[in-house]
Order: sequence, then C-alpha cells, then structure tokens
Amino acid sequence: MDEKSLKKLLEKVRKGSCGIAEAIKQMKHWPAETMDFACLDHHRALRTGFPEVVYGEDKSAEQIIAIIKAMLEKPSVVMATRVNPEKAAQVCEKVAGLDYYETAGMLAGNTDKVFEHECRGTILVMSAGTSDMAVAEEAFYTARYLGNPVKKLYDVGVAGMHRLLSQTELLHQAAVLIVAAGMEGALPSVVAGLVDKPVIAVPTSVGYGASFGGITALLGMLNSCAPGLAVVNIDNGFGAGCMAATINRM
Amino acid sequence: MDEKSLKKLLEKVRKGSCGIAEAIKQMKHWPAETMDFACLDHHRALRTGFPEVVYGEDKSAEQIIAIIKAMLEKPSVVMATRVNPEKAAQVCEKVAGLDYYETAGMLAGNTDKVFEHECRGTILVMSAGTSDMAVAEEAFYTARYLGNPVKKLYDVGVAGMHRLLSQTELLHQAAVLIVAAGMEGALPSVVAGLVDKPVIAVPTSVGYGASFGGITALLGMLNSCAPGLAVVNIDNGFGAGCMAATINRM
Amino acid sequence: MDEKSLKKLLEKVRKGSCGIAEAIKQMKHWPAETMDFACLDHHRALRTGFPEVVYGEDKSAEQIIAIIKAMLEKPSVVMATRVNPEKAAQVCEKVAGLDYYETAGMLAGNTDKVFEHECRGTILVMSAGTSDMAVAEEAFYTARYLGNPVKKLYDVGVAGMHRLLSQTELLHQAAVLIVAAGMEGALPSVVAGLVDKPVIAVPTSVGYGASFGGITALLGMLNSCAPGLAVVNIDNGFGAGCMAATINRM
Amino acid sequence: MDEKSLKKLLEKVRKGSCGIAEAIKQMKHWPAETMDFACLDHHRALRTGFPEVVYGEDKSAEQIIAIIKAMLEKPSVVMATRVNPEKAAQVCEKVAGLDYYETAGMLAGNTDKVFEHECRGTILVMSAGTSDMAVAEEAFYTARYLGNPVKKLYDVGVAGMHRLLSQTELLHQAAVLIVAAGMEGALPSVVAGLVDKPVIAVPTSVGYGASFGGITALLGMLNSCAPGLAVVNIDNGFGAGCMAATINRM
Amino acid sequence: MDEKSLKKLLEKVRKGSCGIAEAIKQMKHWPAETMDFACLDHHRALRTGFPEVVYGEDKSAEQIIAIIKAMLEKPSVVMATRVNPEKAAQVCEKVAGLDYYETAGMLAGNTDKVFEHECRGTILVMSAGTSDMAVAEEAFYTARYLGNPVKKLYDVGVAGMHRLLSQTELLHQAAVLIVAAGMEGALPSVVAGLVDKPVIAVPTSVGYGASFGGITALLGMLNSCAPGLAVVNIDNGFGAGCMAATINRM
Amino acid sequence: MDEKSLKKLLEKVRKGSCGIAEAIKQMKHWPAETMDFACLDHHRALRTGFPEVVYGEDKSAEQIIAIIKAMLEKPSVVMATRVNPEKAAQVCEKVAGLDYYETAGMLAGNTDKVFEHECRGTILVMSAGTSDMAVAEEAFYTARYLGNPVKKLYDVGVAGMHRLLSQTELLHQAAVLIVAAGMEGALPSVVAGLVDKPVIAVPTSVGYGASFGGITALLGMLNSCAPGLAVVNIDNGFGAGCMAATINRM
Amino acid sequence: MDEKSLKKLLEKVRKGSCGIAEAIKQMKHWPAETMDFACLDHHRALRTGFPEVVYGEDKSAEQIIAIIKAMLEKPSVVMATRVNPEKAAQVCEKVAGLDYYETAGMLAGNTDKVFEHECRGTILVMSAGTSDMAVAEEAFYTARYLGNPVKKLYDVGVAGMHRLLSQTELLHQAAVLIVAAGMEGALPSVVAGLVDKPVIAVPTSVGYGASFGGITALLGMLNSCAPGLAVVNIDNGFGAGCMAATINRM
Amino acid sequence: MDEKSLKKLLEKVRKGSCGIAEAIKQMKHWPAETMDFACLDHHRALRTGFPEVVYGEDKSAEQIIAIIKAMLEKPSVVMATRVNPEKAAQVCEKVAGLDYYETAGMLAGNTDKVFEHECRGTILVMSAGTSDMAVAEEAFYTARYLGNPVKKLYDVGVAGMHRLLSQTELLHQAAVLIVAAGMEGALPSVVAGLVDKPVIAVPTSVGYGASFGGITALLGMLNSCAPGLAVVNIDNGFGAGCMAATINRM
Repeated sequence: MDEKSLKKLLEKVRKGSCGIAEAIKQMKHWPAETMDFACLDHHRALRTGFPEVVYGEDKSAEQIIAIIKAMLEKPSVVMATRVNPEKAAQVCEKVAGLDYYETAGMLAGNTDKVFEHECRGTILVMSAGTSDMAVAEEAFYTARYLGNPVKKLYDVGVAGMHRLLSQTELLHQAAVLIVAAGMEGALPSVVAGLVDKPVIAVPTSVGYGASFGGITALLGMLNSCAPGLAVVNIDNGFGAGCMAATINRM
Repeated sequence: MDEKSLKKLLEKVRKGSCGIAEAIKQMKHWPAETMDFACLDHHRALRTGFPEVVYGEDKSAEQIIAIIKAMLEKPSVVMATRVNPEKAAQVCEKVAGLDYYETAGMLAGNTDKVFEHECRGTILVMSAGTSDMAVAEEAFYTARYLGNPVKKLYDVGVAGMHRLLSQTELLHQAAVLIVAAGMEGALPSVVAGLVDKPVIAVPTSVGYGASFGGITALLGMLNSCAPGLAVVNIDNGFGAGCMAATINRM
Repeated sequence: MDEKSLKKLLEKVRKGSCGIAEAIKQMKHWPAETMDFACLDHHRALRTGFPEVVYGEDKSAEQIIAIIKAMLEKPSVVMATRVNPEKAAQVCEKVAGLDYYETAGMLAGNTDKVFEHECRGTILVMSAGTSDMAVAEEAFYTARYLGNPVKKLYDVGVAGMHRLLSQTELLHQAAVLIVAAGMEGALPSVVAGLVDKPVIAVPTSVGYGASFGGITALLGMLNSCAPGLAVVNIDNGFGAGCMAATINRM
Repeated sequence: MDEKSLKKLLEKVRKGSCGIAEAIKQMKHWPAETMDFACLDHHRALRTGFPEVVYGEDKSAEQIIAIIKAMLEKPSVVMATRVNPEKAAQVCEKVAGLDYYETAGMLAGNTDKVFEHECRGTILVMSAGTSDMAVAEEAFYTARYLGNPVKKLYDVGVAGMHRLLSQTELLHQAAVLIVAAGMEGALPSVVAGLVDKPVIAVPTSVGYGASFGGITALLGMLNSCAPGLAVVNIDNGFGAGCMAATINRM
Repeated sequence: MDEKSLKKLLEKVRKGSCGIAEAIKQMKHWPAETMDFACLDHHRALRTGFPEVVYGEDKSAEQIIAIIKAMLEKPSVVMATRVNPEKAAQVCEKVAGLDYYETAGMLAGNTDKVFEHECRGTILVMSAGTSDMAVAEEAFYTARYLGNPVKKLYDVGVAGMHRLLSQTELLHQAAVLIVAAGMEGALPSVVAGLVDKPVIAVPTSVGYGASFGGITALLGMLNSCAPGLAVVNIDNGFGAGCMAATINRM
Repeated sequence: MDEKSLKKLLEKVRKGSCGIAEAIKQMKHWPAETMDFACLDHHRALRTGFPEVVYGEDKSAEQIIAIIKAMLEKPSVVMATRVNPEKAAQVCEKVAGLDYYETAGMLAGNTDKVFEHECRGTILVMSAGTSDMAVAEEAFYTARYLGNPVKKLYDVGVAGMHRLLSQTELLHQAAVLIVAAGMEGALPSVVAGLVDKPVIAVPTSVGYGASFGGITALLGMLNSCAPGLAVVNIDNGFGAGCMAATINRM
Repeated sequence: MDEKSLKKLLEKVRKGSCGIAEAIKQMKHWPAETMDFACLDHHRALRTGFPEVVYGEDKSAEQIIAIIKAMLEKPSVVMATRVNPEKAAQVCEKVAGLDYYETAGMLAGNTDKVFEHECRGTILVMSAGTSDMAVAEEAFYTARYLGNPVKKLYDVGVAGMHRLLSQTELLHQAAVLIVAAGMEGALPSVVAGLVDKPVIAVPTSVGYGASFGGITALLGMLNSCAPGLAVVNIDNGFGAGCMAATINRM
Repeated sequence: MDEKSLKKLLEKVRKGSCGIAEAIKQMKHWPAETMDFACLDHHRALRTGFPEVVYGEDKSAEQIIAIIKAMLEKPSVVMATRVNPEKAAQVCEKVAGLDYYETAGMLAGNTDKVFEHECRGTILVMSAGTSDMAVAEEAFYTARYLGNPVKKLYDVGVAGMHRLLSQTELLHQAAVLIVAAGMEGALPSVVAGLVDKPVIAVPTSVGYGASFGGITALLGMLNSCAPGLAVVNIDNGFGAGCMAATINRM
C-alpha cells in the first residue's frame, strides 16, 4: 500500500463513507510493507551526512564509475573500498576530485562534506606488522570519513614489546582503539590489557602455513582474556572503522 | 502504538480536527511495532490447528509437564521432541492421555485433534540403518501429527542395494520422501536418482571415527548430484518432518 | 542376459521343453542387470520433456558446442550452466538460436519447447545481496526452463529489514521460495519465519575472511530454527531450481 | 631494582657522589621491571571501584569461598561467574550476604558498593531463544555490577520477526546492545540493521548437529554485513558485559 | 511382481494365450524389485560360511543375547564387536559356548565352524603402541574368524625403529599386513616401504591434544608416499580385518 | 663400514689374528648403515622389472626429459604422472618412443618391457562421473604398466543406479576393483556391496562448494559400511593402481 | 639371524670351510634385523641413568603399581605422568617411597638417583594463567627429574604485561624456557621477543568456546614471528620437559 | 619522558630543590615507555652481529633493493627470504655482491661479516623428499649465516628406510637437527627416535589431496611420541634455522 491509498482511506473516514472500525480493520490487514516509506524515511534521516560506500571487490571500473558519479551528486562523502590500483587509475581518469589511498585500497570523494558528529575523542588505529597496514589503513580512512579524529601507530607487534611500551601514552589518549594483527594475532590482547577503552580487534590474513588466512589471528583474538575487546571479520578494516565510529559518536 | 491510539487519530480525522496530511505524517512516524497486533493475528490465523511443539532436550520433566498441560487446553495436537524415557515416564505419570514413542523420543497428546489438511499424498520416511531409526521416527511422527498420511521403510542402506531395489514401487507411490542416513550418507542420493518426487535428506550422527558426528553424512548429501534433493541439519528429524509437511500441503 | 536369451527361454516354455518351475528358477538366477533395458525405458519415460542440461565448468567451448548441437535435435529445452562469457560467445557463434544469460552464466536453446507441467504456483527466487545474484539467476532460469512460472526479488538482505518487510505480499503469493544468501546467510531463516510455503535455501560463496567460501552461510541455513526450510550445496542454484521444480510439479 | 636501590642512588646524586650522567646510565640499565610498582599502582588506580571477579568453572567450592571472603574485605562489588547451583549452595552456606543468579550461574556480593560511573545510557541485553538466556544473563549481571543501567529483551529470534519488530522502540532507547544467539546466530545482524548504536554479538553454544557448539553462530556474526557490530567468544557473556561497560563509560 | 505373477505369465505363454513378444514387453515393465529374491539368493550363496556379525556398540546386553542366540542356530561362526566387559559378562551368563576377547571387545561363538577358504597366506596384524592393541585385536580376531591364518606383532612404533627392524623377516612372510597406529600414524608408511605386500592402514583414536581423536593418524596414512597401502576408518579394526580377508581369499 | 672393511675383518678371522668373540663384538658396534648395501641390493632385487616412475607435477619439462632419458636406459617400463599437455609436448619432442595419455596426464616409455607377473585376474577401474576420468585413467595406466590386465567402466554414478546395475557381470569378473568418485563419493560403497572382491576407493577433487576439494568424497568412503573396501588419498590414481597391483600379484 | 648363527659362520670362515667372498655374500642377505642386538645395546647405553617413564592415562592403579615396582629395581629415577589423585593414592598405598605432585598429576620414585648431567643452566618453566599450571608443573618435574636445575614463574599472562615485565631478569637468567599458555596462547611470543634463549611453547587446553581445546593456542604459537621458538603438542608438558632437557644437556 | 627530563629531575635532586621521596614518586608515575631507550639499547646490544633479515614475499624488487642497500651499510650479514628468481635477478642487477640461492629463494650479502659465535657443534638439515628441499635450504642458509657450521642430508624419507639408516653416523655427529618433511611428515619422529639431540621439525606444504597444504605433516609432527622434538610453522625454514641457531649458541 502506498501513500495514495492511505490518503484515499483517510478521506473516506473524514467524509464518513468509511467507519472507524472498518478503517482500523483495513489497516490491520495491510501487509507490513505499508510501513515501508516510514522506515525508509526514518532510516534515511538517521543516516544523514553518512558516507555512501561502494564495495569495489567484485565490481568493474565501469560499475564503480557509474555508482560513484551518482553518489557524488548527494551532499555526503563517498567511499569505495577494495579498489586496486588499476581500477583506481581508470576511475580517477573519468571522475574528477577523488582521492586514492593505495595501501588502503580506497577511493574517497566529496571529502569536504564529512559530517562532523560530536565525538568522544580520537580513534587510534594500530597494526602489529607492516603487512597489516592495508587493513589498518582501511579502518583509518573509514573512521576518518565517518567524521572522527584519527591517529595511527603501526608496526608495534608483540615480538618486540619495547616498541609498544614506548607508546603507552598515545594509547591512553585514545577514546577507541582499532588493533589489526595477523599471524598469532596477540597484539589486541596486550593493548586491551594496557588501556581501559574499547578495543576493536581486526584479524588480518597476513601470514603463511598455519595462519590459515587469518583464522589463527581471529581465534586468538576471540580467546583474549583481556576485558573490553571485541572482534570483527578477518581483513574487515571497514567494519572495524564503522564499529569504532558508532562507539565514538556522542 | 496500540489500536486505541489509532482509533483516536481516525476520530480526529473524521471530526476534521486533524488534517489528512497531518494524519499521514503521524502514521509515518509510528514505529514499525505498531503493526504488531496485525502480524500476530495473521500469524495466529495461519497456524490454526497446527500442533504446538516442545523441544524437550534442555528442559526438566517439571518444565515439560507445565508447558504440555497448558498446551493441552488448546484444540491442537501437542508434541514434545527429544524426551528421553526417564523424563517421559515422569511426564506421563502427571499428564494423562499422552502417547510416548520411545525410539523417536517423542510425546504426543490431543492426538484426536490432528488438523487434516488436504494433502498431495503420502510421506515416506526411510532410513539407511537400524541406528538411524531414532531420527527417522522423529520425522515420521512429526509428519503424522502435522496431518499427513505416512509410511516407513527402514534399514535399506546402500551396502545392500537389493533391499532398496525390491521396494521401488513403494518409493514411487510417495508424494514426498524423507531419507535419514548416517556414516557415508549415500542413501538419499540413490533414492533421489530413482524417484521424481522431492527428497528431504536428513544426516544422522550415527557412526564413529571419520563420521564426525554426522558431518560426513551431511557433506555427502549436500554434494549429491541427484536433482530434487535438499538437506536439513544433522539429526533434525523434526525439521525434515516439517519441511515434508509444508511441501505436502495443498 | 539379453532379450534374445529371454526369447529363447520363453520359446522353450511355449514348446513345453522347459517347465514353468524350471523357467522361474532360471530367471531367478539372472543377474540384476537383465532388467536394465526396462529401467532405462521407464527412466526415459519419466523424463519426457525435461530439459537436457550440460555442466559447462570443466568443458571447453568445443565440447559444449558438440553436446548442445546433439541435444538440440531432441524436442526438449537445452540448458548449459556455468558457461562464462568467453565460452558463451564462442558457442553462440557456432550454434544458432541460443539465449545467453550472463549473470546466471547459462545458455538456453529450444526454449519454445519448455514442457509445461501443471504447477502449484509461482516460484519466487530471492537474493540477499547483489553479489548473490549469479546464483539466484541460475536458480531462476533453471526453474523457468523446467516449466515453472517464476518471479524474482533481489537485494533484500537482513541488515536492512525494511526492504524485505515491504515485500511480504509477494512472498505470500509464492508456492515455493528459493532464497540465496552469502556471508551470514540469515535471509532464508527470516523468510521461512514469514511464510508457510517450502523454502529452499542456497548458500553462496559471496563474502571474505571468515565466510570461508560459503561455509558460514551453509552452516547458518542448516541451523535455522524456522520450519519448512531445507538447504542445497554452496552456489548450487541449479540444484535449488530442480528441487523447487520437483516440489512445484502437481 | 627495588625502591630502596633507587633511593640510594638518588641520595648519592644529592650528595654529589654520583654524577648525573652516571646516574642516568645506571638507570638505563635497570631492567624494565623496576617500573613495575609504578605500573601496578597506576593499574590499581585505574581500576578503583571495579568489581573483583572470580572465574568459577575450574574451582572447587572451597577455593571460591576462600577467594570471595578475601575479596569482600575490599570496598568493591564481588562477582563469581560459572558457578553451578551445587557449588553456589555450598558457598552461600559459608559466606553471608551473597546473591545467586541461577540462570546466569553468578554469585554477587558487596552489591551496595557498585561503582556508579557516569554512563552514556542503558545497556540492553537481548537473546534469540530461551536457551540463550544463560549467556544473556551473565552479560546482564556483569554489566549491571560494572555500574550500568541495564534492561533485557529475551526470546526475540529471527524465525518470528514480529516479536522483534514490536520492540524497536526499546532497541532505539539503548546506548549499547548485547545480543546473544545460538544456532544460526542471525539476530545481531538484524538488530544492528535496525539501530545506530554499538552492538556486541555473543554467539552461544546452543544448538545441535551442525551448530558445532556455537561455531556456526560465531561465524554468522563475524560475517554480518551490518555496520556497528563486533563479536566476542562463544558463551562469553562476561566479556560482552565488560565490552559494553567499557563503551558505556563516559 | 512376485513369483505367482511370473508363474501366471509363463503359463499363458505355454498355453499360447500370450505371445512371446508380448511376454517380453510385460517383463520389461516389471519394476526392478521383481529380481529381489534372486539377488537375495545369490547374495546368500556368496556368503555361505561367512560369520554373522553383530555391532555391539549401541545395543543392550539383552539385544545382543537375542541376536546371538538366533545366529548360533546357523552353521557359521558368530562374532559381536564393540562389546564391553560388563555386557560381555551378562551375555556369557545367558549364552553358553562363547569366547570373549577383552582387549578386542569381541565375542565369538560356533568357533568350530570357521569356513576355511583357500588363502594366499598369513595375515600379520601390527600395532605401533600398546594403546593401539584394542583396534589391532579387533582386526586380528575378525581376520581369524573369517578363516585366515593370523599372526601379531605389537608395540613396534617408529620412535624406536630397532624394534621394527628386528622383525623384518616376520613382515616379509605375511601375505597381507594390517597396521594400526594412533598419534602421528607413521608406522604403516614405514612398513609399506619395507614389504611388497598389500598393507591395510588403520588409524586409531589413541593420543591427545592435536591427535584429534585419530584424524592426525588418518591424514598421515592417506598421505603416505609408500606404494601398496590403503586406509580404513579410524578405529575400524573390523573393516581392516574384512579387507585383509577379502584380499587373502583365493 | 664398507665391504672392504668387512673383507679385512673376515681375513683376520680366517688367519686367526682376530678371535671369533672379538669379531662378533666389532660387528655389533658397526652402525646400522653397514647393512645398507645389502638392503639396497635386496630392495633392487625385489623391484626388478618394476616401472620407474617420475612425479611430474613440480618438475619442468627439462627436468622430466633428463630423468626419463636416464630411465629409458634400464630394461623397465618408465612412467611419468601429472604431466600436462604442454610439458608432454616438449618432452615428446626431445624423447622418442613415448606414449602420452592426455586424460591421465601420463607419459609411458619402454612399454614393450612391462614385467608380466602372474596375476590373480583383471583389475577393473570405475568412475562415477566423466569428470572423475582423469584420476581413473591414472589408476588404469598405472595398473596396466605394473603388468596387470585392466578394464574400465566409467560414468556409472549412484544418481542413475540402472547404469551400474546393468554391468554387474563385469563387476563380478574382476579380481580387484578401483572406484574413483568425487562429490558425495558413494559409488565405492555401492560397488563393495555388490561384489566380494577388494575395492580400492579413490576420492577425487571433482565438485564445488561443500565438496571441499575431495574431502567430502574421502570422508564418505572412509565411512562406508560395506566390507572389503579401503581408501587412498584424494586424486591418488597412481596410489590406487599400485595398491591394486600389489593385491593382484600372485 | 642371531648371534649363534653369526658365530657359526665365523667359525666356518676360520676353519676355511667357508670362503670370505661366500661369507660376505651370506651376510649381505641377512635381513636388517640381525643388527638389532647392537642397536639395542647402543640405545641402552645412551639412555643410562635416564628416568623410566609410565604414561598413566589409560592404565589402572594395578597396572601402574606393577610397572613402577619393576622399575624401582633399576638405578634410575622413575616417573609416572597423568596419574589422578585417586589412582595416586592407591599406588602410594602399595609402593613406598613415592612422591606425588597433584597439580602435575605425577608420581616420582628413586628420586635420589637423578642422573646429573652437565647442564647449560637453569630451565625456567612459565605459565600464562593459574589454570595452565597443571601442564607447566608436568614440564617442571619432567625437567627436574631428567637432571636439570629448574625454576618456575606462573600466572604472567599477556593481559597484564606488568607482571611479566617485572620479571625480565629471571627470564634472562634461564638457559632454556618452557612457556605454557591456553586461550590465545600469546605468552610464548612475548617471551621469545624478550630473551635470546630457546623457548619451548606448550599450548594448553585451557579455555572455552573458540579455544577449541587448545587449537587456538597451538595455532597462535606456531604463527609467532618471534625467532627462537618451537612448539609441542597441546597439554604436552612432558614433551616440553624432554625437549628442554635435551637442549640443556652439554 | 625522555632523557632530558630525567636529567632535569636529577639536577633538581642534586640541587636539593626536589626531595628524594618526591623524585621517587615522580618516577613511579612515569609511564612505562620512559624505559624504552634502555630496552632498545639492551636489545641492540644483544643482537650485535646478527644478520638483518628481509621477508621478501610481499615486497616488490624495488622495496627489497632499497632495504638491502641500507642494510649493507651495517657490519652484519644481510639476508632476504622468499625472493623468487625474477625478483632476485632484478635485485642483483642493482645491488652488487649478493649471492642468490634459488632453491632456498634467499639472497645474502656481507657474507664475509658472519658473526661466528662459539657453537655447540654442527647443525644437520634433513629433508624427506626432493620437494621439501626448498624449505630445508631456507633453514640451511639461515643457520649458516647466523654463524653455525651446517651440513645437509636430503631425500631420506621413511618410505625407503635404508637410505636413512645408512646415515646414522652423520645423524649422531650433529648437535642440533632440523628435519623438513611434507605429506605424512613422519621423518622427524623417526630421526628423534635415533638420536639424543634436539630435533626441530618443519612441516612443508608439499603434497596434494589430504595433505591440506602441510596440515597433515604439522599434525603428525606434533603427535610424535619421540622425546626431544619440537615443531615450527609449515614451510618455516627460516624459523627452524633461528631456533636451531639459538640452541646451538654457547
């Protein structure tokens, strides 16, 4: 049922050609979807200023170009994740004003339209090794374009604890921490033992042999005995950025 | 929002104290749950005459007794699955008029109130080995008390094909077939290759070693190249019975 | 034993040179395969009008061309699944009158020869995300060319429930539903909770990290607590279409 | 190096018997552990007022009694998790003033000494089925005794969407949501699609067959495409409560 | 179609009231199961003298007693596998003349009626450790009561190669070798590298930690690069005994 | 210790310059490897006339050419497995007199020098589907060039039982059966239920989704309840051929 | 071939009744096992003074008593692992002079006969949590009774880094380190990053949910990027103690 | 806090403007990272003369060139692992004086600057098959450039025990043994049963089918019942070399 039908029914009620009991009965039998426009409206309202995001993995450069062009019309930041350099070059040739972050594999546009929520503080994005940086950077730019102040601290894995311990001040200043690690995935546990802020752990597929494409890191993080830590999917920097932004929003 | 509020709003519309545009706007902002009574009503309507089912696994005899007593008040068949003989004895001592099917681990009551839908035909429940009978029987009684004509054909596993082949007529007469098998789980494939009716495959946890509690049977069934076959969870005789009943309903 | 031997034996019976008891005894000792011609006949009869299907994955364009040409001689629809655009182009160049559905990866010919069975109703094919469409389309065209009325409803995943809820009427009109979903694979459960028709759940390999090529979706579907749902193999749109068609046939 | 040694060195500095450069050199060579008392102090300071928690699973009633008695001396709430009814009865007999929550399997003492942080809002604890309640209750009481306002909403699984949809207002009022689910584990995804607050997903080991003791639920939650969701270990209600409390703290 | 119908048809043929062509046509349309009595006969013939075997795992002492009593009437050896000492004691109290092999968990009766086939030679049953003996013994007695000369060689695991190497003569004398091993499961590979006779590898569930109930041993055996080796299920001493007997039969 | 040293010692014994006790003592302390030449000799003796085999997977065409050329000097058949058509073409260009079996991916030379052992009978190689033929053919040519009479029966999978049942005579004539199957891997079970000869089951990696590269077929075969069946590694046609040949050798 | 045969042959050589060439030829054809007595001797020599060890898991108290009594006759330490308190009490009642270490589950006797090798230094045994102590203690007493100086440092897991960092001096003093950890298993990585001595990592089965009985800890340790670390089986404290002792031996 | 601040504080102490108690209090509150320079110094000291190592897998030739050039300035050996021939050629063209080991996939420079520690003895690197040589060679050159005497013994797998047994002397001469094996991974167990020196087991990803990329070999090694054996990650020749070097260092 669309708005027109509802209007018609209400007009009948006003004119008295439909009794109230009858109107209620009819409305009861509307399928749930009659509420859809409301939901959508509400939904859209909630999301005002939020970036529109394209998942670039399975899409051709042409498809990304078409979608991004449409999105740039709206007054919101536009992001595309998992865009490799080849596709990015093709897209940037056709669409002006985009920034490409190669390590993150992300494109961003309308970056002057970031919606600045009131925030709790800074989101600190950490990585255990240099190879985890791709995932960390995806989290970094996601959080940034969702309107958060962001900092980064990379290559502070547990096999060289002194590097991490020399930065505890930076850790304590953050409101939310995202920690990406592959291989044994121990860094988030150690970090969560040092701070009393929420830690989002992101396992990465970095490693070989019994790292099983990130499963080892994922399991390690799920089994952390440090309180104040939760986990997202393997290589899901985008999801970590979203979760951190949701937590950081006042 | 409840019905009363809706009535009030409609009265205002009728009296003209609320414009139609205003009414629509208000209705748009009702949370989705305002439609709940409708959903519930509809839902209940759909389910008229359907058995009420208790999952007995994690429940004490006392809990099962309390729930079944309440259910028996309603004009529908009552079923309880995964009830072991000890609990069943305790329940039957306190609640009169129940039947207990030990192999199936099921209790049934109000069995004179089975809702007889118009059906496509008979549901044939098969098992590969005698050890798969518990699961097959759960499927059998579930289908029966959901109002279907049911037949059974047990212990016709693939290691002795002649037993199965001697019953092909019975197979062809069924409208829907449920096939329970553990170990290598090959029976449903063979059956689906012999008939042109829907086959519901139920892997069972029967076996040892590399049967992995039914995983091997489950994987075998999912990989069947026979058309007209779909799979339910390991040991899920109840689910198979429900699926078969849903298919068999006209 | 071949037909000739059988004829000889019967001739002896007619002439009286072999007693009836003796003939029965001899026939008892024929190996089972003597019945093969019967089985084959019967089988073929059952399948009259059914499409012939080629599994294109491991076959070269040349092989597909050869098989399809032979098939097109028969008065049945011809389908080839898992044909990529390159192969499809080569095939269509050599074989006239074929339709190619790129998203589904399917070729179809003799499409005017679809065998129209009497059906229960419409098969509705749904997908959770746009990436699941390839599998959904394979199911869609399989069901269609097996002689069923088909509809589709794509991109109605559980992370945006309003999109699904706005289409409940469409859901209720279907006789059988095929629901394809990757990642967490939750859509079939939700759909099966909304309708009282059989739901065929198809896990897809869409996702990354801990989606494990569709295992997560598969496990989720198998564990659904919604009644009236069964599952086929990961990415097995063809199998889902066959199962739905088998159910939908009167 | 202990405080005494440090004091001696500083005295030498003051007396001039040790030059500043020399003092710095010596301090450089102190092993890292000389800072331990500082760390401990700092740590303790951070945690003032936080409950002391006993993991009861592997401990005997005697051990729990001894630990809890010591803890009750301190001016903080005391919690013990995974305490079964038998052990709880033994503990309560020996230690006065404890509350036992049987479903949660938790003991609590000094409950008048909950440290009331300034909070963002209410933590809503949800469960998909009644069997998931044990885990949900563990999360509930953990969050409560960590000083948070808490509400609960149980048995709103995805196979009956109307139950959930009728409570969306309650969902929108929460500052943080904990969602426990077993079997297919789809509820957190659906909830995260309805709200814009952080959702902590807790897979439970509820289920049978291919639920694999909670692995299926865990994988489903990790693969959720809903933003603003992160996951803790299977059955880890305590960890979910801690994470939610960490997020909810201002 | 049963024998009576066949007889009637043949009578018509004899009387000439049914032409031969017509009779053949009718017989072609008999369902496959009409051949069942033949199959059964043939089957039984093949198996003359073979032991009857009861799988005791899931059966009560009462059930085993009933089945064994019936079996002992026939002129064949009777075996029951996976019978624990308690059940065995109960069975032996009620049924006279049974032997119980405790390590093997097997009962045997009518042992004077072993069918002595002509054999290729001796079957040698080996085990890596003393804990693998249960499985090895099951294989040993299975092979023995299937009518084979059998020898045993236990506790010759690869961590002490000298024990094995001191017995190579015994190895070379065997016609078929059964090798049971748990943990890393390396013994069958080593043995198959020393002999040129068929080796049946039986993984056992002996071990802890990453032995995963025999999976490690199973995988090790499947990956053996030694020629002339094949594998049965974990702990499947019975299956190994059957396979060896099938090979050893002339 | 080499032969020369042994000779010297024996000469001393003969001359009386070394007592017998002393000689024994010295020989006791020879490391085990002194027996190596004996072992090697013996080993070589055992293997006289056996083909030399190259595993071509990881080797370049150049490497294969070098090895095969050397092998062709010896009076034995030469085989190379897992050689793709490109490499095969390169090899055949440089080495005269080789046969290439493309489906099997095998090269063979000196094929007039097959060592004809006395055999028990024919080895029958079967496959469930046409896609399993590569593995079946590897087994076929391995068995053939190990000196066995071989037959083949392909594409007789369980989803169309009539194809298999029409060939039971062929099955009964074989002395050993090799059965290759992918997907659900049920064919070997069915075959082992029809014959009383040893069956070597070879799982193949044919399939998709939950076939997991042959794991499903492997598990199905290991769980077969048919006696007289053992299993080799996934896609290990060569191993199956060796095992069958070892069994078939008199 | 036994010593007697060898003697006979040598006597013939001495007497000239067997030529040297002939003797060598005969010896070449002795099976490898003729060297067995030598191997055994050598083996025994190597192991002089080493403890005899009983694996108590699958053995009854009676069996343990019998074995230990025999072992105590020899001049070596005696150890029994995996002996629970009930069995230990029974054993100690019958055998005098045994020590029982309850947490380690170990019995030791002849403890005054420890063979004191020359050692590199102290073996430090560490554990992440109190629940890992059972495994750590098994390693501790194994190393001690293999003749090594041992120290322990327990409950220093990574979620509270300050506890570990305050003990770095102790870490640096060890010659070999054994580190037991369950759950995420991160401690060995951190330790190996702090020291430059060999670290033996022992995963323990401590944990719940996705700790999978120690698999998570095992995988984490295998994936450590810290150099100088190797891993033993889950809960294998005994193996860790043996490896450390082997390394520590001069 | 940096050195400057520490200096200032000490100056105040010397001048008496800061009391000792106050100074201690301030130092207590320095964050742990103030000790970082010490840690780093210490760390660097510990590592003097150690090679610098580049993990080449994920790096471009350009990146490797830049890093190696910088490293070559320092007076230590330089190693790069996992460098394929193409990258190696590019690197060697731009950087003079490098050695490339193709099988090992390693580059080495400054090889005249190997730091020769005092060592226990020789490290023996063994491999089961020729395909395991790549991993073995990585271990070999790692150990060599970490300053150890190294030997190799390849292609001595368990399916031909005589090859291994003929080399036991070489085995007994080694101080530490590294054993690389794929497929069933049994070689390290056998070796550890022959020697009384530490054995580092390295599973390799060599194999197919159920070798699962090295998991089978890994599990086999973890389950070895031979004492004195520990395991590193699949294909981790570098880690094995480091562990062996750490053990071999005096």
